Order: sequence, then C-alpha cells, then structure tokens
Amino acid sequence: MKVVIAGSGAMGCSFGFMLQKSGNDVTLLDGWQNNIDAIRKDGLHLQDGTAELSTKIDIYKPEEFKDSADFVIVFTKSMQLENMLSSIKHVLRDDTKILCLLNGLGHTETLKKFIEPKNIFMGVTVVTAGMKGPGSAVLSSHGKTEIQNIVPEGKAGAELIVETLNKATMPAVYSDNILWSIWRKAALNGAMNSTCTIMECNMLELGSIAGCKDMMRCIISEFAAIARTQGVTLDVDSVTDYVYGFTQPDFVGAKHYPSMHQDLIKNHRLTEIDFLNGYISRKGKELHIPTPYCDLITTFVHGKEKLFGL
Amino acid sequence: MKVVIAGSGAMGCSFGFMLQKSGNDVTLLDGWQNNIDAIRKDGLHLQDGTAELSTKIDIYKPEEFKDSADFVIVFTKSMQLENMLSSIKHVLRDDTKILCLLNGLGHTETLKKFIEPKNIFMGVTVVTAGMKGPGSAVLSSHGKTEIQNIVPEGKAGAELIVETLNKATMPAVYSDNILWSIWRKAALNGAMNSTCTIMECNMLELGSIAGCKDMMRCIISEFAAIARTQGVTLDVDSVTDYVYGFTQPDFVGAKHYPSMHQDLIKNHRLTEIDFLNGYISRKGKELHIPTPYCDLITTFVHGKEKLFGL
Repeated sequence: MKVVIAGSGAMGCSFGFMLQKSGNDVTLLDGWQNNIDAIRKDGLHLQDGTAELSTKIDIYKPEEFKDSADFVIVFTKSMQLENMLSSIKHVLRDDTKILCLLNGLGHTETLKKFIEPKNIFMGVTVVTAGMKGPGSAVLSSHGKTEIQNIVPEGKAGAELIVETLNKATMPAVYSDNILWSIWRKAALNGAMNSTCTIMECNMLELGSIAGCKDMMRCIISEFAAIARTQGVTLDVDSVTDYVYGFTQPDFVGAKHYPSMHQDLIKNHRLTEIDFLNGYISRKGKELHIPTPYCDLITTFVHGKEKLFGL
Repeated sequence: MKVVIAGSGAMGCSFGFMLQKSGNDVTLLDGWQNNIDAIRKDGLHLQDGTAELSTKIDIYKPEEFKDSADFVIVFTKSMQLENMLSSIKHVLRDDTKILCLLNGLGHTETLKKFIEPKNIFMGVTVVTAGMKGPGSAVLSSHGKTEIQNIVPEGKAGAELIVETLNKATMPAVYSDNILWSIWRKAALNGAMNSTCTIMECNMLELGSIAGCKDMMRCIISEFAAIARTQGVTLDVDSVTDYVYGFTQPDFVGAKHYPSMHQDLIKNHRLTEIDFLNGYISRKGKELHIPTPYCDLITTFVHGKEKLFGL
C-alpha cells in the first residue's frame, strides 16, 4: 500500500517506520527542515524497545511531494491539521483513506472540509513515542490503537486499516464507538493535562490538591454536556473516577508531566488547548450551554502562552 | 485614648506609631518574637516619606498584655483574626471600640462572635506600608481610610475614630456605605490578585491576556450575586471597568505584583484566598448560588499553596 505520513514527529516516524518495515511503500511528510535533512542523509533511526533500528525512507515537505496515496495518517499537532490538509490536497484521490489519531476534539469537522466522510477514519491510540533529535525517534510502547469509520460505508476500509497496522506490529482493533473513546480521552486531557499545565505540576501532585476530584467532575460535566449534543454519552461519575485514577499513587505513571505541560512549561510551545477545553468553551457559546470551568481554564492556558511570549 | 494595635506588622506599626505620636497611649500586640525583641531593645523605627522617625513604644504578646483598651485596631492577616480576638478577650471592655481595616469578606461575622455590634467599626484603607525587618516599618503613603459603624447607635463612635485618625495625620472620612467599599475592594482582590497569583504575573501582564476583562466580569458577577444577598449592590460593569483599569498601561502601578502574589509566589506564605474568592465559593454553596469561577480559582490557589509545601 502507498502510505503517506502527514506530520513526521515522534508518532509519525514510529508508525511510518513500522509500516515500511512490514512491506508498505511509505513516504514521510514534514515541515521540520533539520528532520528532513537528517533522514535524507542518514536514514530514519528508531529505538524500538531495546532494538536500535534504521531504514532509508522517503521524506518531503508536504508541498514538494507530487504523488498520490492509498492511505494517509495525519500526525500533525492539532493546530496544524488544517494547514497540512490544505498542503496535501493533491495527494488525496477519491479513494484515499485518511486516518486521524490526533488528541482532541473538532478534527472530524476539519477533515470533512477536505475529504469525503467514507474515506475518514478516526482513532485513539495509546502508543507513546518521543524524538531524540532530527531523524531519530523512540517508540516507547506499542500500545493499542482503536479505529472506526465515521459513516457506515467506511467499515471495510476501517477493517483494512486495522489489518495493516496489526501486520506492522502496531496493535489495532476495530472500535464500534470511537466517538466515545475520543471524547473520553479529550475529557481526560481537559481535566488533567490543562490543570497540570496551569498548576505547573505532575499528575500525582495534581491529585494531592484539596478539591481535585470535585474540580475534575465539574470540568468533565462540561465535556459531557457538549458530547451529548453530538450523540455521545459520557457518564460523568465513571469518567471522573477514570481520570482521577491517573493522579493516584497506585498509578505507576502518576509522576509523569502530561504532554501539554511538556509543550508549554518545559518547551515553551503553544498548546492544544483550543481542541480540548477551548473546544468545549467555543461550542458552549454557540449552543448556549454554560461552560465556566472550560472558559476559565482556556483563558489561563492561553494567558500562560502569552506570558511565555508565544 | 488607650489604644491597642492587635497585629503589629507594617500596617499595625505605622498606625500605632502615628497614633502614639499624636498623643495616644499606644500598645502594640504581636506574635513575632523578633519584632517584639527589636522594638523593646531599640524602639520602633518608621520611615515616613523621607523622614526617619523612631519612638519607644510598648509591645507584648497578646496573651501577656493584661490591661484593657478604649480602642483596638486589628491588623492581623485575615486567617489570624479569630485567634487574635480569642487571645485579647480580656482587653475588651463593654465599651471598647474595635476597628477592622482588613481586606476581604467575613470579618464582621468573626468580630460579632466577640464584640457587641455597637462597638464594631469597619473600614477600608489605601494606606500602604511595608516592613524593612523586625522593629522597622516603612509608611509609603498616608492614603485615605473610610470608616463606618455597623449599627446606627455606633455612629458617634465612628466619628470619634475618624477624628482620632485625622489628628494622627492618617486621613480618615466617615463613610455612609462602607459595606459597598469593602465588597468592591474584595471584588478587586478576587478578580485581580487571585488571578495574578495563579498566573504568576503582575497586573499589567494580566491585563495583556486575551479574555482578561471577560474573565474579570465573570468573577465580579459572582461577587455581586453574593453581595446582593447581604444587601449590597455591586454594579458589575462599572466594577469591572474599575478593576480592569488597574491592569492597563496608563495606570502607574500596573507593573506591581499584588499582595497575594507577594505572599505566595515571592514569600511562600499562605494566602487570604478564603476571605476573597473562597468566601464567595463557600457562601455560594450555602445559598445554592453557582460560583464556578470562584470555586476553581480557590482550588487553584489552595493547590499552589500545597505545591509550595504550605
């Protein structure tokens, strides 16, 4: 299969590497010139568990790549998705399938501006990966990826994608309620990552704060209220228990700083807040549903971005 | 007049010094041993504008002082008021007047546990003062103090206090709506100081954040909703304009860090949040009035206190 990875940071490099290794014809697209130069010169390096792998692989700037693709996986930052889709219009044929595993909300709406719904596939992954530097990624866990078509006629396509990923040793399953999974993950990020970013603390520290669980419940209630308008039912109590669990001492990763904290506090980069609490806040205003917690959290996170000079 | 200053930090030392200078018999009470030792050994030093003044003045721990007083001014931190009143019960006669100039809400309720309403006088001051160290205060501005009785029969007492302060070159006026002034100042502190503390920024920086004024309006609306239950009318728009004004470049003090920021972020001390947004949040729960902004702000500020190990 002719695969294009649109956005070749840690996740894109990891999926791209494994898909090429399992026999697909993979092209990476990226905007980071140092990454492009390094991969063209020395190939793509991947630390996969204890194994140090490397491969030659094609990489281009999106606008420089002239071919089309059978299958595209988008792995940009949320705020770059629309620009990336604009830049790769020529890559997308009438039957090109596109898989979006990005965190956050609102991506389906963006994808629909460029692609027929039957070719759009949404997913949630717990794969974790990082970059050592240009051309060098670390695939820290082959976590599970759930995938689903967004309209009924896409089901066969989703099953093909699941099969393709499994062959590439990236475990995938067909989900019959991917929207629920996407919303639950967004609620997790919106209740935990944003607040850890504002408080500049890790998950365990967040959980130690008086009133943490009540605060999470209020935030998650707002996610649930907007989810309901899209036909998704989030049970507030059980999602709150789920999210709060990540902040407790018996969760092994609780001393971890969530990705939004790493983006903003550690690396002074813009956050994806507009696709989490910011999305809830925006939809709340449109639909006249009060979302004060998400409104205030969005103001604080954008405020911190501004104070960091972003 | 036999005056007792209950709490002899910067404000207590400044008022105490000026009251003694104008002929009153002043005793300072304080819990800070170094301050007591320094004042007993070398007297109280006060930098008043460009003048360097000093005086002998009595100072005791509250429980060690055995006399009674005609007039007490409380100048503790908000959270120490109740303990201080407990410790000075023996100082309070049936006709001892007590003046409270503390920032924040809920102090009248605390005072009423110990003192007849006719002897309670509430005020708002814009005097600013700081400590150089034990026994040495700086009175940076003789700002105006507004004072009022809380029941009609206290009016003559309020007028006497106003006269006493004016004689001491601490400009004072009788207010006919001190509750409004107290609430407006609390709304200022709750909309600006708490948010500067969470964002770790100064007032000008706060004002530069997108959505700052909307955020302030939402916070001030919650203060107004609780104020209304106590017979006080805060006009949300005009108070919002007033508060927002402190964050604008044409306000000379805009690069100042508010006192709560200095307490927590600079000096790692507990804040007075429970007497500002925390009071609104508590009253909201009691009265079934939603106060989500104040709830979340209170959680964040207490969370930061906890993360600083307080």
